Amino acid sequence: MTTEDGVSMDGAEGEKKLSKKEINKLAKQQKKMEKKAEHAAPDVGENEREMEEDVSEGRYGAYGIIQSAERKKLDFIDVKDVLVNLEGQEIWIRGRLHTSRIKGKTCFIIIRQQMHSIQGMLFVGKEISKQMLKFVGNISKESIVDVRGTVRKVEQEIISCTQREVEIHVTQLFVVSAAEPRLPLQIEDAARIKEESKSAEDSSLSIVNLDTRLDNRVLDLRTQTSHAIFSIQAGVCELFRNTLKKRGFMEIHTPKIISAASEGGANVSYFKGSAYLAQSPQLYKQMAIAADFDKVFTIGAVFRAEDSNTHRHLTEFVGLDIEMAFKFHYHEVLETIGAVLIDIFKDLQAKFKHEIETVGKQYPCEPFEFIEPALILKYPDAVKLLRENGVEIGDEDDLSTPVEKFLGRLVKEKYQTDFYILDRYPLAVRPFYTMPDANDPKYSNSYDMFMRGEEILSGAQRIHDASLLTERAKHHQIDLEKIRAYIDSFKYGCPPHAGGGIGLERVTMLFLGLGNVRLASLFPRDPKRITP
Amino acid sequence: MTTEDGVSMDGAEGEKKLSKKEINKLAKQQKKMEKKAEHAAPDVGENEREMEEDVSEGRYGAYGIIQSAERKKLDFIDVKDVLVNLEGQEIWIRGRLHTSRIKGKTCFIIIRQQMHSIQGMLFVGKEISKQMLKFVGNISKESIVDVRGTVRKVEQEIISCTQREVEIHVTQLFVVSAAEPRLPLQIEDAARIKEESKSAEDSSLSIVNLDTRLDNRVLDLRTQTSHAIFSIQAGVCELFRNTLKKRGFMEIHTPKIISAASEGGANVSYFKGSAYLAQSPQLYKQMAIAADFDKVFTIGAVFRAEDSNTHRHLTEFVGLDIEMAFKFHYHEVLETIGAVLIDIFKDLQAKFKHEIETVGKQYPCEPFEFIEPALILKYPDAVKLLRENGVEIGDEDDLSTPVEKFLGRLVKEKYQTDFYILDRYPLAVRPFYTMPDANDPKYSNSYDMFMRGEEILSGAQRIHDASLLTERAKHHQIDLEKIRAYIDSFKYGCPPHAGGGIGLERVTMLFLGLGNVRLASLFPRDPKRITP
Repeated sequence: MTTEDGVSMDGAEGEKKLSKKEINKLAKQQKKMEKKAEHAAPDVGENEREMEEDVSEGRYGAYGIIQSAERKKLDFIDVKDVLVNLEGQEIWIRGRLHTSRIKGKTCFIIIRQQMHSIQGMLFVGKEISKQMLKFVGNISKESIVDVRGTVRKVEQEIISCTQREVEIHVTQLFVVSAAEPRLPLQIEDAARIKEESKSAEDSSLSIVNLDTRLDNRVLDLRTQTSHAIFSIQAGVCELFRNTLKKRGFMEIHTPKIISAASEGGANVSYFKGSAYLAQSPQLYKQMAIAADFDKVFTIGAVFRAEDSNTHRHLTEFVGLDIEMAFKFHYHEVLETIGAVLIDIFKDLQAKFKHEIETVGKQYPCEPFEFIEPALILKYPDAVKLLRENGVEIGDEDDLSTPVEKFLGRLVKEKYQTDFYILDRYPLAVRPFYTMPDANDPKYSNSYDMFMRGEEILSGAQRIHDASLLTERAKHHQIDLEKIRAYIDSFKYGCPPHAGGGIGLERVTMLFLGLGNVRLASLFPRDPKRITP
Repeated sequence: MTTEDGVSMDGAEGEKKLSKKEINKLAKQQKKMEKKAEHAAPDVGENEREMEEDVSEGRYGAYGIIQSAERKKLDFIDVKDVLVNLEGQEIWIRGRLHTSRIKGKTCFIIIRQQMHSIQGMLFVGKEISKQMLKFVGNISKESIVDVRGTVRKVEQEIISCTQREVEIHVTQLFVVSAAEPRLPLQIEDAARIKEESKSAEDSSLSIVNLDTRLDNRVLDLRTQTSHAIFSIQAGVCELFRNTLKKRGFMEIHTPKIISAASEGGANVSYFKGSAYLAQSPQLYKQMAIAADFDKVFTIGAVFRAEDSNTHRHLTEFVGLDIEMAFKFHYHEVLETIGAVLIDIFKDLQAKFKHEIETVGKQYPCEPFEFIEPALILKYPDAVKLLRENGVEIGDEDDLSTPVEKFLGRLVKEKYQTDFYILDRYPLAVRPFYTMPDANDPKYSNSYDMFMRGEEILSGAQRIHDASLLTERAKHHQIDLEKIRAYIDSFKYGCPPHAGGGIGLERVTMLFLGLGNVRLASLFPRDPKRITP
């Protein structure tokens, strides 16, 4: 059961199979572990244990560092699967000790596993010694433990756990990995709804500010809210790929290190020379189109060395990028992207109900509304709508962020949708590579897409003709030498094409109404944060 | 049909629908286009056309820049779908003019579309004028064209095309986007098998060297070989994700900009300070494990600022990374990764037969062989095998690249597999965070995986205990201050875990036997190349 160095020890098979020698080893191991984890079980002293026989000996303790000395096969079950149908069965679970509380001869524990939690009970008696109870009561919160016990249906719902109809009557408990007793933040504080703490300012309920949470992201990410957010985010990527695959798109990977600087591209030292970080995969997506890949997408890091300290800017984010050749009209692409996003919204609401609800407990928010097919609003119509509602704006003016938000509210009122496409931006406010409108050169074949009034995608038909591109670059007073490679890509035949880039963190934030994009990034980067 | 600025014109509906005015416009447009594209149709002069009536008028020409003026709906069909069952049908295709050749009153063209190609024929007669024939014969190679014609079964297989049993009798042909007449390389030269040119040194067959190909990657990527390679590569990513999803893994995204330098990490200027590019997502994958994500994977850019100019090193590559908590033994993870790779190999061979064959024409190679479950070879057994075959190597020596390759050949002979896992490396040759072997501290719980004798993955059980990690870092004389954030991640309870990182380009290269990793990167980066 135990191995030479005593690293792994068997609690699974019960005491019967442990030899005297093995039990001694186990005890030694346990002492060593206790010393190491210090406060994990500070009060279970040598003397006390020697004073009375321990009926639980061998049924609790610490494994020590699991070093793969032995390949034990215990059948663990996920907490989420512990339901009333397991009533009376003995099971193993491995999870975090979320809380423990001793009350007389009983110890209540909560075991947490990702988005789920279950209550465990220990009663001093024939099988559970006082020593074991004390040991369990003293394990520091957030330690990982293996728990053996019998599933019991409860009479009254346990509202503090996700598994409300059952609890586990514990018979064995081992520490897998002990947490330090002083945590830089409490998981329940990081998971607290803002309003809850506000309305109880005088109470002891504390709330952790975002910086503290991000400084201790490993703990902050353990909340049920965080697990739900990142499940949903993984879902966005998967649904994006699936719906594009169905539409004949191919996945590509584009380089992040590039030779040419563009506005806001961070400098990288590169051997004896220097390079830059790509602000967008656009050039490479377009080159893939010029190389006949027809319909491509890529998911990857995008870098913005802009000193924007807002709720919606990151210096590094995940771009969901699309580029697509079309036959005659860029709306072939625009409608495809619109349909892709609507597919994603629909599937998120269908497949991530539980996760969306979980996030909503900490960040309450109106459900995300949309209409199908996506609303396409022409720029002049948007300007008209704004003017009707008191906004002063010129025909060819760009929209400021507050105006975008206001327009989002007007659109929501008028069309009952949190998602829409704004089409045919004024040419003057778009980059040089944007295809001018064929019928009115004041406008362009370009678009932005919005969720809850905030931009999540910017896109356009790109100029696929080298001479027109040169002309437009000159008009924008761009140094042609610097973009020669880009222009040259279109000299050997290129189909008309359009595309756009979606910010993954923004989609996640706005779909869920999180209010800050950092909450939708596992390890966010902004001008002031590059750790952890 | 035509719009105000004459950008788009309708060839789809035939001449009946064109008004006189429209035809005039069309002609003007065409002249403008011809002037612009210069050599695209240099000989179709004004005079000649005026000399005789053109029976094909309105059935050929150039669209001009497609600026989305009009949304035409032609039913285009993919070249790969033009098969004998379409005999007699009139169809539209859009593709590259791969070649054109006039022979008397006939013009042979080949239209290429990604991995597929088809022959087209034009015969001077009632419908096709001499002028049209000349126009088509003069369109520069690599221009994109819209072709209308009737599908005809051929009597003799057309071996120069992928669609061997049919050809198209062309009735209309329009230039969508003209290529410059001088190409920096010929597509067929970039697609030529090395041996073919070697055995014909005296002949005119030329071969393009890799640097020229990479300098003109947009053209080089148009070869059928390139299209097949990147289809397969997209397949690797998709299969990787699918098989991991089935096994309960979740996708995450880790930051590329990090604060702490490590060996070989490129420096980035970051606002007023400085940062580094991540050489691996390992720290962040491990933090995800410490945050209870249990089983994670991530696909993303990995940076190595190493001055390695070899056939298998890139300074930026795509990492397929896995990290997984396990219960008692890291082989739970090792076997999972082995099974994931075998799933990928099996599905590639089943689903990408045509692509593998296509690549094999330019890069002939033995099919990739493997056994299931994956062969796990213990390091001491590998050393023994090497010694039996004359290699002098110490018990705790690392394997050099040539020795790895030789070992690969020995393993292939003995076990008939191109894929295997080398397990339990000497502790001395692995990084400080590697878990030592519980039973023999000379060894470690770490592994590499090999394809055709070259390493594609390096992985290990990581030390998940902060104090042991500190001890090992000290032993390696690592400055503890620099890795404090890393060590701190394990202070609040962390399950035992293991993982590894796979190089996407290496897997693609070795599966297909390409001989150079650059061929498996869309836009490769090495110490000497950061363009295009």
